[in-house]
Amino acid sequence: MLNFTVGPVQSSECVRAIGAENVPYFRTPEFSNLMLENERMILDFANAPEGSRAIFLTGSGTAAMEAAVMNALTRADKALVVNGGSFGTRFVQLLQRHDIPYDEIKLERGQPLREEDLARYEGGDYTTFLINACETSTGVKYDMDIVAQFCKRNNAFLIVDAISYFLAEEFDMTELDAGIMITGSQKALACPPGISILALAPSALEKIASTSVKCMYFDLKDALKNGERGQTPFTPAVATLIQIHERLKEIEALGGAQEESRRIGALARYFRNALVDLPFELATASPCASVTSLHPTTASAYDIFTTLKDEYEIWVCPNGGELRDLVFRVGHIGALTTDDYDVLLDAFRDMQRRALI
Amino acid sequence: MLNFTVGPVQSSECVRAIGAENVPYFRTPEFSNLMLENERMILDFANAPEGSRAIFLTGSGTAAMEAAVMNALTRADKALVVNGGSFGTRFVQLLQRHDIPYDEIKLERGQPLREEDLARYEGGDYTTFLINACETSTGVKYDMDIVAQFCKRNNAFLIVDAISYFLAEEFDMTELDAGIMITGSQKALACPPGISILALAPSALEKIASTSVKCMYFDLKDALKNGERGQTPFTPAVATLIQIHERLKEIEALGGAQEESRRIGALARYFRNALVDLPFELATASPCASVTSLHPTTASAYDIFTTLKDEYEIWVCPNGGELRDLVFRVGHIGALTTDDYDVLLDAFRDMQRRALI
Repeated sequence: MLNFTVGPVQSSECVRAIGAENVPYFRTPEFSNLMLENERMILDFANAPEGSRAIFLTGSGTAAMEAAVMNALTRADKALVVNGGSFGTRFVQLLQRHDIPYDEIKLERGQPLREEDLARYEGGDYTTFLINACETSTGVKYDMDIVAQFCKRNNAFLIVDAISYFLAEEFDMTELDAGIMITGSQKALACPPGISILALAPSALEKIASTSVKCMYFDLKDALKNGERGQTPFTPAVATLIQIHERLKEIEALGGAQEESRRIGALARYFRNALVDLPFELATASPCASVTSLHPTTASAYDIFTTLKDEYEIWVCPNGGELRDLVFRVGHIGALTTDDYDVLLDAFRDMQRRALI
Repeated sequence: MLNFTVGPVQSSECVRAIGAENVPYFRTPEFSNLMLENERMILDFANAPEGSRAIFLTGSGTAAMEAAVMNALTRADKALVVNGGSFGTRFVQLLQRHDIPYDEIKLERGQPLREEDLARYEGGDYTTFLINACETSTGVKYDMDIVAQFCKRNNAFLIVDAISYFLAEEFDMTELDAGIMITGSQKALACPPGISILALAPSALEKIASTSVKCMYFDLKDALKNGERGQTPFTPAVATLIQIHERLKEIEALGGAQEESRRIGALARYFRNALVDLPFELATASPCASVTSLHPTTASAYDIFTTLKDEYEIWVCPNGGELRDLVFRVGHIGALTTDDYDVLLDAFRDMQRRALI
């Protein structure tokens, strides 16, 4: 199968080879060193400010989103959250679940965030701003510069879900003055799912130190303390962490985060430029490099997903809920080449000949 | 390296081969079917009562222990917990963290649980009993029959951490009338770490339905609802779940849970019988088949761990804290044979010749 979903994605040969090995014992200096290198490379690729830390949680991206909310916010805070799709909604649900007062900037699906959307919230005493840099459900990319400026003007702590943004687009924690960046193993890191990552600026470390968290597993104080010696409080997904190490070194050797986002951006452009004769509309005018959301004008999006899977050995990414028949997504993260996109484009053209689209 | 730790452990060739493959997209009927089969086999091997459900959480064993506490207990409960080592202490800490009233049966490290330890708690209005069937830190196995009888007499809901017990010892949820059994992917299931599993009897499902959980990631209501169609609320460790499927089918084909625990028990006996001329004492008189805890009488336990790692390419399992120099552990779970134990025993004899032990 050829996999164009937005996670899990295809892994490089080196990463897969590690999956075939027995998982080593991990309470060792060797594994600690590997984890400290993982932390260094993540912080480097995010351009996190001096004194930042990174934590590797065994769990999904939502686990890291919830850990961020639990550790950086209390009922005394007032949050402002951008909700332009199902992952924005997830942040809203997390704020509700933890009784954090919030206001919500509700955007139409696929619409970018504009200066005027933010204007009415100026001076609103928000302590914290939460946003999905890429709202993965529609692939819309938000303008992080206007968000960062809003946060600086309003002195708000910035939490960025960059799960499908990190390494696909340039992301600079220092420039944005972001407090927390979240990502996951199965997106542009192109490793199996199971690990989510939080990069924590010193401003986040301060908050974590002063918050009392009603959950042992998500108490980042424990994770930070164990992380000082390259360990985790509980048995982590060791194999995935070793694969992440391999992959981070691979990215470093090929020129770092900037080069990786350039490569992914080029793949996205290659695919988008080839769509002209196909009956698809872009579902957003502001797409993130990691994914292209398409609205088919002649067929059900879910039927296209199923036909590609069952008859062409290709996975694209279906949508759920009300977008099920309206939108499907083609990812540009993972071990993919322009040749792979040619295979997908040929399949589309074949489906066109068969009058399936 | 030869791995005799108690997790991560060695995996069979079939399981490792899956690790080398690309991770498939999982919001598909194919993956749903695999998950439903995983659920069926786990419940079958635990002999869970009719109407039980199983949940696969992406997280460590502690994640599942915490989910059990959060979903099955409230401040209106009164818990009784056995604390005979670091995993018993973890249950205690979880009860504290979630403000659950409790009493604690504190046992000396390595000591079994006796009828008389329970006697003073009879009629104590306990709603819930929590125990690690095998306290992995010392390898002590508790007598689950006397626990089950206590719970029946006192009408207490039984939560069993069977993380390193399930498949290594016979475990019968129906006979014990256990409400929740917890296990993990990296113990006798012999897959990479990253997945913990909860088997939930109908009595547990009732509790979960009525509890309000202050954590989205650990809200088992969501997991149960998604599980009805073989899915998870959040992206799980897909590769590990496919490996678990392979391994469960392997166990089924070889005769089921009973046969697997017989095999592990035989390995444990083989190793323990060969210890006679070595300067080690058993650290517990009531060892679980999954692990042998040894107290070396002539050297530091941690030094033995380090020498085996650095000079013999063998991992045994070190202990932390105050047991660091006193106890190391040799596991009997994972893809191991008597030949592997001969290699370990030869290494011990060589260390004896070198006067290292």
